[in-house]
Amino acid sequence: MLEYAETDPALPGNHFHRVEDQLRTELLLRQYELLRHADRTILLLIAGIDGVGKGSTINQLNEWLDPRHIHTLAFDRPTPEERRRPPMWRYWNALPPKGHIGLIFGSWYSPLLLDAYQDRLSASRLAREAQTIRRFEDMLIAENVLVVKFWYHMSRHAQQARCQQMLADPDTAWRVSEADLRVVRHYDDIRHGAVRVLQATQNANAPWHVIPSADPHHRIVATARLLRDALVNPLPPKPSLPAPQPHPDQLSALDYRQTITKADYEAQLPHWQGRLSRAVRRPSFAKRSLVLVFEGDDAAGKGGTIRRIAHALDVRQYHIMPVSAPNDVERSHPYLWRFWRNVPPRGRIGIFDRSWYGRVLIERVEQLTSPSDWERAYTEIKDFEHEWVAHGAILLKFWLAITQREQLKRFHAREKSPFKSFKLTPDDWRNRELNPQYRAAASEMLERTHTESAPWHVIATDDKRLARVTVLRTIAEALEGRLGEG
Amino acid sequence: MLEYAETDPALPGNHFHRVEDQLRTELLLRQYELLRHADRTILLLIAGIDGVGKGSTINQLNEWLDPRHIHTLAFDRPTPEERRRPPMWRYWNALPPKGHIGLIFGSWYSPLLLDAYQDRLSASRLAREAQTIRRFEDMLIAENVLVVKFWYHMSRHAQQARCQQMLADPDTAWRVSEADLRVVRHYDDIRHGAVRVLQATQNANAPWHVIPSADPHHRIVATARLLRDALVNPLPPKPSLPAPQPHPDQLSALDYRQTITKADYEAQLPHWQGRLSRAVRRPSFAKRSLVLVFEGDDAAGKGGTIRRIAHALDVRQYHIMPVSAPNDVERSHPYLWRFWRNVPPRGRIGIFDRSWYGRVLIERVEQLTSPSDWERAYTEIKDFEHEWVAHGAILLKFWLAITQREQLKRFHAREKSPFKSFKLTPDDWRNRELNPQYRAAASEMLERTHTESAPWHVIATDDKRLARVTVLRTIAEALEGRLGEG
Repeated sequence: MLEYAETDPALPGNHFHRVEDQLRTELLLRQYELLRHADRTILLLIAGIDGVGKGSTINQLNEWLDPRHIHTLAFDRPTPEERRRPPMWRYWNALPPKGHIGLIFGSWYSPLLLDAYQDRLSASRLAREAQTIRRFEDMLIAENVLVVKFWYHMSRHAQQARCQQMLADPDTAWRVSEADLRVVRHYDDIRHGAVRVLQATQNANAPWHVIPSADPHHRIVATARLLRDALVNPLPPKPSLPAPQPHPDQLSALDYRQTITKADYEAQLPHWQGRLSRAVRRPSFAKRSLVLVFEGDDAAGKGGTIRRIAHALDVRQYHIMPVSAPNDVERSHPYLWRFWRNVPPRGRIGIFDRSWYGRVLIERVEQLTSPSDWERAYTEIKDFEHEWVAHGAILLKFWLAITQREQLKRFHAREKSPFKSFKLTPDDWRNRELNPQYRAAASEMLERTHTESAPWHVIATDDKRLARVTVLRTIAEALEGRLGEG
Repeated sequence: MLEYAETDPALPGNHFHRVEDQLRTELLLRQYELLRHADRTILLLIAGIDGVGKGSTINQLNEWLDPRHIHTLAFDRPTPEERRRPPMWRYWNALPPKGHIGLIFGSWYSPLLLDAYQDRLSASRLAREAQTIRRFEDMLIAENVLVVKFWYHMSRHAQQARCQQMLADPDTAWRVSEADLRVVRHYDDIRHGAVRVLQATQNANAPWHVIPSADPHHRIVATARLLRDALVNPLPPKPSLPAPQPHPDQLSALDYRQTITKADYEAQLPHWQGRLSRAVRRPSFAKRSLVLVFEGDDAAGKGGTIRRIAHALDVRQYHIMPVSAPNDVERSHPYLWRFWRNVPPRGRIGIFDRSWYGRVLIERVEQLTSPSDWERAYTEIKDFEHEWVAHGAILLKFWLAITQREQLKRFHAREKSPFKSFKLTPDDWRNRELNPQYRAAASEMLERTHTESAPWHVIATDDKRLARVTVLRTIAEALEGRLGEG
């Protein structure tokens, strides 16, 4: 796939000057359209062997386009903060909003390429990581974040000549880096590694474009033309929907009648709070993190349960994220963006009062999201959770369930309380009427997103106290089991 | 100032239950008003000796208020990322928007208090740091970020009894931390240190409130009442304006006729790019950072100059921030917020294409900001720049100046270019008409914000090439001078 680029094609100067004006005008016009419609983000991956002008391309794109709406995102080795999260975190964190263009230098391909160059990449690992990347890119694309992957390339001879020419002049010698010279010495190994990675990560929705780079005019014109197309091509079609499946109703099967005495509660609550508190102070927790997700019926006691957990923790160690409708900035990013940014790093505890599951609950029931969009969320959410668990997170998900009768009682009690009536909104009554739809969505979600590494715990909460003790015990035991003695 | 708290006053249980309902109702009502008006941010500093229930207070405030609009911001020792910026950076970074309440645990007082406890805080350092903190808090308050400082306190006897009681029961013993026990052992030293810091940092606009904390009811009621007041008190009055002063017109005095030959330019540009490139690769640069600010007339060549600088740098090392009107999120924070978040950490280079000086240029001339607000900006900006310079930043500010005649020529050339005409907006023509006002604002700014540690360089740009070489030479020489040989 690199053969054509290695013929080092050039664009005659007069031809370049003929097309330059039109291309720049078109690009700018379309960039402003992108900004106005704000229906997509464009990510350009600027990859390729070293010493072929990737930095100059970035500079030139910033000149040809309006740089105020371009984000140049250059990633080097991960910082300590970045290492406390999964590798993809830094890309999520930096993702530009819709209407903007991101130029990514040092993308998610960099670690893979480096290992491939040094012949440390087994075929099975390459296949596995290519699969992860494909799912990540497909998800971005489904969320209208278009991924355009450029591989800048030239022949060994041209790369060598370019370095030598620059080294000969003291005013340009500083442009030649260690990495450029490594390419001169190990061109074949690097080329071979690159071909393996590019072939394994071809993706019809996000293909690699190989850009011949020996001639700067050819390089920028080829880049600009592909960017122009990305700016106007129709958005990729939505995947088709699978046939609906019946899902068992776990929530009706639950035993809501169990209770605990007040005396037992007052003994057990501090006991499990103590166990939790001691568990997260173990030295081995520094390499793990704890992610608690709370979903469930209105008035099932999420807030009160979360406060009992927080009470056992040092305020410097945990963060509670209350989740409601996304704000404008969040809405101009993929729905998982705000959660990626808020999952806690190693050594910390994140408590989600509602969560990313809103996608397949409220957004589904209230028809805020199309069926093809929430349908793919089951898989996307499992991928997302898997990345954090693989990085050391202990992820526990709680569904707090309440009977309709008990919920009504609590709504009435709230109405009567001067400071709780604020918490009862017309939406709560409306959601109550939509209970069958919510229950069906919850049942499907509980079944399709229950995994061994990120299990759902369904808790009956008609007895609030029993529910609190049960949640605390579940968390403490899970931590003790997974942290070991350390 | 701690004597009353050390009498450990208590609120009788029946009195508490009488006031609780009304207080919670009032707080919630006013929190929703705050959210609706969104005219201020409330920052509650939760400070005090250890083991007096600060964590419980935070928990309780999250219960009494709507936690979706409360940000619990708990700071521990600085992370490596935080240490790459000045100490205040992490508070800026986390500042909640208007309409929201921030609970700060581990505030900017923590390092000072720790040193005071251990008798490592000289009177002169305390006076100096108190002054810095006062200016910081005054600036926040002028930007409608109200700072309410709570000191939770109880007698030695009560603190000791509380610890012993908890230690006696295995279910509560885990609540007693090392820090709590240190207070028991060193109560007098800690008390003495706290009094020194509190007295030195009293501020009429942000006074310390000492909250007796031996009785939990007393503690939460006192906290809630002060918070209620902060939610409704009128915003602090704006400072009065100093009498206007004449400022010399540096821009007319500039020599705009100097030129450079094309041959000289083509020799000198790569020479200074090389010097710059080598300077930022010196090992000693890892402890410094480079901040470049570009302001100036329209069409004076800021973009072209910045691209020549970027061309000398590794794309992973620099970041260009193009500054235009703030977005909604930025507008709901103090004007310096977006800049604090974007100044580069140690080892990096930040290039500002327009900057925080918009406050005293466009915002002043276009009357987007009241005179008392832009007037105080001269001092605030110097404080801001000083903090970064004191932390190792090399900060250079460039004003690119052009004659009216040359500007008109460039405007006409832009009109004719198919891809440059986009850059010429009706605003550019309007700004040209406002040139006398802009020039007066610029002259005052250049005089009042030129400091030894963050100097202005005023550059004539009628000859674009000469201007580029001059800017590059200035940067390279400044770096070489300050980095030394290392």
